[in-house]
Parts: sequence; structure tokens; C-alpha cells
Amino acid sequence: MAHFDIAIIGTGSGNSILDERYTDKKVAICEQNVFGGTCLNVGCIPTKMFVYAADIAHDVQDAARYGIDARIDAVRWPDIVSRVFGRIDPLAVGGENYRRASPNVEVFSSHTRFRPSTADGRYALRTDDGDEFTADQVVIAAGSRVTVPEAVTACGVPYHTSDTIMRIPEVPEHLIIVGGGFVACEFAHVFSALGSRVTLLIRGATLLRGHDDDIASRFTDLAAKKWEVRNHHELADARKVGDGVEITCQDGSKLRGDMLLVATGRVPNGDQLDAHHAGVKVSGSGQVVVDQYQRTTARGIFALGDVSSDYQLKHVANHEARVVKHNLLQDWDDTEAMMPSNHRYVPSAVFTDPQIAMVGLTENEARAKGLRIKVKIQDYSDVAYGWAMEDTVGIAKLIVDDDTGLLLGAHIMGHQASSLIQPVVQAMAFDLPAQEMARGQYWIHPALPEVIENALLALCGEPPWPPSRRH
Amino acid sequence: MAHFDIAIIGTGSGNSILDERYTDKKVAICEQNVFGGTCLNVGCIPTKMFVYAADIAHDVQDAARYGIDARIDAVRWPDIVSRVFGRIDPLAVGGENYRRASPNVEVFSSHTRFRPSTADGRYALRTDDGDEFTADQVVIAAGSRVTVPEAVTACGVPYHTSDTIMRIPEVPEHLIIVGGGFVACEFAHVFSALGSRVTLLIRGATLLRGHDDDIASRFTDLAAKKWEVRNHHELADARKVGDGVEITCQDGSKLRGDMLLVATGRVPNGDQLDAHHAGVKVSGSGQVVVDQYQRTTARGIFALGDVSSDYQLKHVANHEARVVKHNLLQDWDDTEAMMPSNHRYVPSAVFTDPQIAMVGLTENEARAKGLRIKVKIQDYSDVAYGWAMEDTVGIAKLIVDDDTGLLLGAHIMGHQASSLIQPVVQAMAFDLPAQEMARGQYWIHPALPEVIENALLALCGEPPWPPSRRH
Repeated sequence: MAHFDIAIIGTGSGNSILDERYTDKKVAICEQNVFGGTCLNVGCIPTKMFVYAADIAHDVQDAARYGIDARIDAVRWPDIVSRVFGRIDPLAVGGENYRRASPNVEVFSSHTRFRPSTADGRYALRTDDGDEFTADQVVIAAGSRVTVPEAVTACGVPYHTSDTIMRIPEVPEHLIIVGGGFVACEFAHVFSALGSRVTLLIRGATLLRGHDDDIASRFTDLAAKKWEVRNHHELADARKVGDGVEITCQDGSKLRGDMLLVATGRVPNGDQLDAHHAGVKVSGSGQVVVDQYQRTTARGIFALGDVSSDYQLKHVANHEARVVKHNLLQDWDDTEAMMPSNHRYVPSAVFTDPQIAMVGLTENEARAKGLRIKVKIQDYSDVAYGWAMEDTVGIAKLIVDDDTGLLLGAHIMGHQASSLIQPVVQAMAFDLPAQEMARGQYWIHPALPEVIENALLALCGEPPWPPSRRH
Repeated sequence: MAHFDIAIIGTGSGNSILDERYTDKKVAICEQNVFGGTCLNVGCIPTKMFVYAADIAHDVQDAARYGIDARIDAVRWPDIVSRVFGRIDPLAVGGENYRRASPNVEVFSSHTRFRPSTADGRYALRTDDGDEFTADQVVIAAGSRVTVPEAVTACGVPYHTSDTIMRIPEVPEHLIIVGGGFVACEFAHVFSALGSRVTLLIRGATLLRGHDDDIASRFTDLAAKKWEVRNHHELADARKVGDGVEITCQDGSKLRGDMLLVATGRVPNGDQLDAHHAGVKVSGSGQVVVDQYQRTTARGIFALGDVSSDYQLKHVANHEARVVKHNLLQDWDDTEAMMPSNHRYVPSAVFTDPQIAMVGLTENEARAKGLRIKVKIQDYSDVAYGWAMEDTVGIAKLIVDDDTGLLLGAHIMGHQASSLIQPVVQAMAFDLPAQEMARGQYWIHPALPEVIENALLALCGEPPWPPSRRH
């Protein structure tokens, strides 16, 4: 049986571990799909390429209010698909070829799972192709997978998920989306802007649950003006009708459309690994249990990314991969030398319309913790650049701890939200008090970050002079 | 002769001084033009409203490369003008009415200048309308004015400046712009995107001199692809020809166009005040001399903004106004109680195409200071969002001090430049080392600020673990 120093299961962020410090290690890399993982192949990267095209289409449709009469003559969907995947697919192939050409690396291309460990304490793995090998250390970076409700799979209706919808041959006339999270809202924007009628079926009252209430409710109100949002609806049955689908909801209502997209979330792949053979604890939801050093419950086995993280976010997986990259080379028990993961202030964004970004606590979370807080919702339309954009929807909601003066959370909906939030992330990460952040730096007039400046000033006022005390 | 506690000359940033602490003061406000100053009436605010319309027009024209075939049917220039000034003009009127309604304020609506002070040490002022009054304290916030070369004024050719061009009745077919600074480049973008052919006459080799060389040269190369850039050209003579103009350059070359825009800079209005009567020192260029507390050379007289500042920037004028607002209420000699101005890291932006933002030193400035520096030019196209945008021109150039690890300057050209620079401004203002900035916070994937993250990492590498020392 072949033996490796390290086996890495999954080539998303897991593939970034092997830097020059690992050239002496004999490494097995296991990837059952194409190289590069969710982000590159079916996640962040291609979706944002579609979203940007949708943003442009939206700008054309919206140009008249700026005095520009414009129109779309055609949306060349197949060209968009070719442009996106003509760029991405070669990267996945190139990534695999690069690893296959590395003298110290062997690539296994089918699903890999644990077998009982060997008597000498080596971990044993087996691929669906029948390969078997052992390894001293293992990195579980097996990611997550789309989950589809049984009501959908049971009825045999044709459906798409985020894995497949970006390669469909043409824009559907009427797209029905089951789900109301970020994937649902991004694709609703993409297809709506590119010409589809869009209907969203959601179980709850609002889209983007888990976001701050003000964002979720305002976004849902905006969405309802351009998409059909059927809230408090759940799919009970569905069937193929002609070239389309017919959905029956639990309340008996029916709905016909041309295509069904299921966007009801992702589950970690920890349940697919027979990890108990190695002593790796996996939660009931399929999440590999790790400590702050990304160590699983089995000595020598680390995990990172969607398979083990509370965050299904590429920037978190990348951070955890850097942690594992360092910790793999340390003694398992030497927590002094090991790098801990930092999950203190993790921002995220939804590239829908309008764009949304958040970091830290929601207002409800902050209140539930019993914190004394101050909250400001700043309209984009109150700053010069918001004027220039004739903006009517953008808001930046900031939450400050009244006792410490530190920012607790930020929730931005509007143009450039995913960029505007970065100074707030930076302030939170480096414990910069909100009042100092407001006045200790210049904010370009009339640029859009003035939204953040004004929110901070509304919360904290002008700092006193002479400064009594730096926090 | 009427007497006031405070006289304020100019209602740009000067108009923001009177907060609740000043309700007991008797105040004269002098404004020879409409209320609000350059920024509101002929500067930042209206130009950015035109620029945003131009950005939208540009997006429509550029949509095809994203798979969206779009076209502009019409640019409704008069509607753009109405929208912009229909919003701004009432603000100027409202600002004046508000002051006129204040019981402690008197407004003087003609040009105001100093007369010899009275025997008891009060400053004496006189308006062109013949009003005379005295004041204990004076704030000179008289701003700057457009400067036009004598070669233009002498020949009697009709021309526009930034004061007038935004109210012209229609988009000119061929606009000739004299000058290559930020005003020239913003209007070149506006009129080009809205349909004009644009020719720029510049004396030097590149547009945007004073910016980092890489920015100026790359921007000039881009500009030359869509505008006619005649560098090393200087206007010698010009005349009206039919409905248009004919320019003769010093090398004898001629050029015909439909309209002439002169954008050759602004000069401070310090020369218009007879300030010597009050003992206020004014430089040969018309700039009122101030110290770090915004005090002029005359006891009790402060100055702020374009009339006295090295920066013709609204965010700087606003900062200086906050300083004066505080210092006016302190004892003139009590520098402990007085607030100093902070001009340490002043960012600025040019809202042209592509957008440009900068802060701190240029590479040449840093090298001239003998600093050991590291420089990175990061392409937008190397990050995911740059991909999504199919970006080919965006760059972020960061300069780090190799001895201290601190950022010395940032120069960004591309989409959202004026927003992307804010985290860098914040890092510089709070002395955050570049390496900590890179890895001490999360950067949303795949948002555009990853351009900054990647530039930082390229400069500083991954931080060591355990951290040897926090800077």
C-alpha cells in the first residue's frame, strides 16, 4: 500500500497548502470533481461574472433617469456562458495538470474515504476507483454540497441548482426559485436583469434571513417590486409540464414556470468520509469538528473550509488553509507554536441588487447580548455621491457599543456595499473606536465612503478637543 | 458703523462655523456670489452628478463586451442640467434664507474687503454696496477663483470655464479643452461619454501632472485612445469662427472646434481683500498665510479653505472649518486649548474615466526623500472582481517604507478608486503597518478591495507566526 506524508482531501482552499515548505513531503491529493473547488467552479467566481453582466444590463435599463435614453437590443446569453467558463474551465484543468506534474504529489480522482487505520497508527484511505494508501497526516478540505429538499427529489421534476444553472442554453422566460438566501437572491438578480420573469418561493416572511432585520425587510420590499416573492410558501409537489414545470405549494396554490432553480442551502461533506474510522468526530449535520487550531479530534488530522467551518465563505476557508499550512508543520501538541484561527470579524456580501455587505453583530444579536448600543441608519441619498447616483435605496446601518465606543456591526445595502464595508472591517479588527475612525482620517469628498463617515458622526458626534483620552 | 463679534467672508465651508455655541455672537456673513461656495455650486457636487450620468452612458456603450448589446437612443442634456441645478440652486437660496432668518446674523451680498482698522483695534470692512462695519474677529473663507491665461482673455474669444460649462444649452459636437488637470479630465470624460469629440491642449507631456508618474502616464495613454491629446501645445491665439472657435498654438498649428473650455487651475482669492489693512499677510500667489491653528498674521483673524490652504479640496476646507470653529472660541494665545489642523494624509480623487484616487507620497517624492521603499502595482485583473469586470486598465500602486513597514502612499486608477483607497487612508492615519493591514482583517472574496489586499501581500508577504513583534 502506498504511503504519503500528507493526504489532502479536496482541492478548493485545500489545494493552497502546498508551498515551498512542503516540497520534501510526499503528498496525496484527492479530488472527485474538477480541481479548484466550489468557489472557482460553481461559486464566487462564475456567479460574480454573471452578476456583473447583470449589473450592466440593469444600468442600461435604469439609464433614463440620468437623462440617457438607452435600450438593450439583445442579451447574448451563450456568449456570457462561453466567456465565463471559457476562462474558468481551463484553470481547473491547469490546476490539476500542475499538481500531476509535481514530483512529490500524486492525484487521486475519485471519491476518497477513510478506512480503519493501520496497526502502526497510519491513517488509511480508499478511493472509489479502488486505490488504497496510508498517510501520517490528513487535511480534510472536502467542502460542502448543494442540498435539495426531498419534496423536490421525490417528485422527479427536472430542476437546476447553482451547480448547473450557469450552463443552461438560454435565459428562461420565467424562472421559479425555491429558497430566499444569498444564492437565490444573486440568481434572481442575474436572470431578472437579463430578461427573465422571476418568482421566489420562500418559507419565511423575508428574503435573506440571518441578515439584520432592517436589511432583510427593506431588501424584501425592494425585491417584491421587481420579482414575485411568495413568502410563507413551501413546495409540496412539482411536475414537468410541457417544457416547463408546475409547482404545487403546501397551501394548495399552484405556479407554472419554465425552469426551476433550487437554492435551499449547502451542507458540509463530513458525512461522506467514513471519518469515524480515523477517530474524526463529525456532527449530525455533517460538519467535521475542529478546535481553534483547525485540529480535528484525530491526532494529525486537520480540517478547513466548508466541511468544518461555521462560515461557508471562501475568505474564511483561505484563512483556515493558511492556519493549517502553518500548523501541519508544528508538533501536534505544541499550541504555543500553532497559529489559531481568527473568526472574530468575518464580513460577507451578497452580490444581488442592491448589493449587500455585513460584518459583526446584527442589531437583534447585540440587544440579545444585553449590550448598550447606539444604532444609525444612514441613507446614501444624504451624501453627495448618493445624490449623484440619484440613489433612493442605499443604506449603511452601523451599530456601536455605547460603553466602549467600538463598532459592533455594520450592515450595508446599496452600490459598492462590499467595498464600503472594508474600512469598518478594518476598524473592528484593530479595535479602532468609532469616533476616532470618523475624525482621525480624511474621507474624500464627494466619494461614496462619506456614507460611513456620516453614519459614524451621527453615532458619535465630533470628538472633544483637547482629546481627553485615547481609547 | 455697525459692529459684529465675528465677520465671516465666504459661505462655502465658512458657512458651517455657526453652530449652537455661536448663537450669542453677532455675526456678519459676506457672500458676493450665491451661498454655498465652489463645491456646492460649481464644483464637487454638480460635477459628480454630471460624471455619474457620463459613467452610465459609458457603461451602455461598453456593454457589448459583457454579452449585452445596448445602445443610447438619446442624451437629454437639458434634462441633465435641469436635474442637477434644479436640485442645487434651491439649496443655495435656502442656505441664504436660513442665515437671513437668523436673529444674530446679518448677510452682506456684495464683495467685501478690509479697510484700515479702527483706533480701538476693531477690524473694519466695507462692501461694494457701500456697507461698512467692524468686527472683533474675522474668518477669511473667501475661496478661490478660476484662472484664465491672458492669451485667452486678450484675444476676446468666447470661452467657458467650470463656472459656466455645466449650464450650456447643448452638448458641443467638438469640445476643445485647454488644460490637463483634474477639472479638464473630469469634463473631458463627461462630454466625451455624452457624445462630444474632445481635444485636450496641454503644455506638458502628460495629463494629471502632480500625480504619481505611473498613474499620469498610463492615464494619458488611455486618454489618447478616446480623446485627442495634444501635448506640448500651448494656446497662442484664438478667435471666434462662425459658431465655433479656432485656436492657434505657439507652434503655429491650428485647431477648430465648437466650444472652448479653459481649465487651467484656480487661484486663491486672498488678493481681493485688501487684507494688508488688517495686517493679514498674503503670499504673492494670493494665498492667505496661516499657521497650524489656522491663525493669520493678524490677531483675531483666521482663514480656511482654498483662500489659505495648500489643498483645494472640500474635505480639507471642512476640516479647517471645524478647527476654526473651535479655535475662534479660544484665547488667541492659548495654543494648548487650540486645535491644530491635521494635513498629514490628505486623499483626493479625480472622477474621470477611469477614476483616480491618491493619498500620501508619489514614488518620486518618496525616493527624493531618500526613503527605502517597496513598490507594488497590482492589476485589478488579477483579482476575482476584476475578472468579473473584464477589467484591463485598473491598477493599485502602493508604496511602503521598508524600514518602518508603514504605508507611504497609494495611487489607484480604476473602478471605485475613490472608495478602495479609504482603508489605505485609514491605515496611514492610524499608523497601521502594511503587513498587519493585509492579514489582520478579512477581505471579502470576491469583492474589489482584494486588489488592496493582494498589493499589500505582494509588498509584505505573509506575517510570521508567532508574531515576533507588533510594530
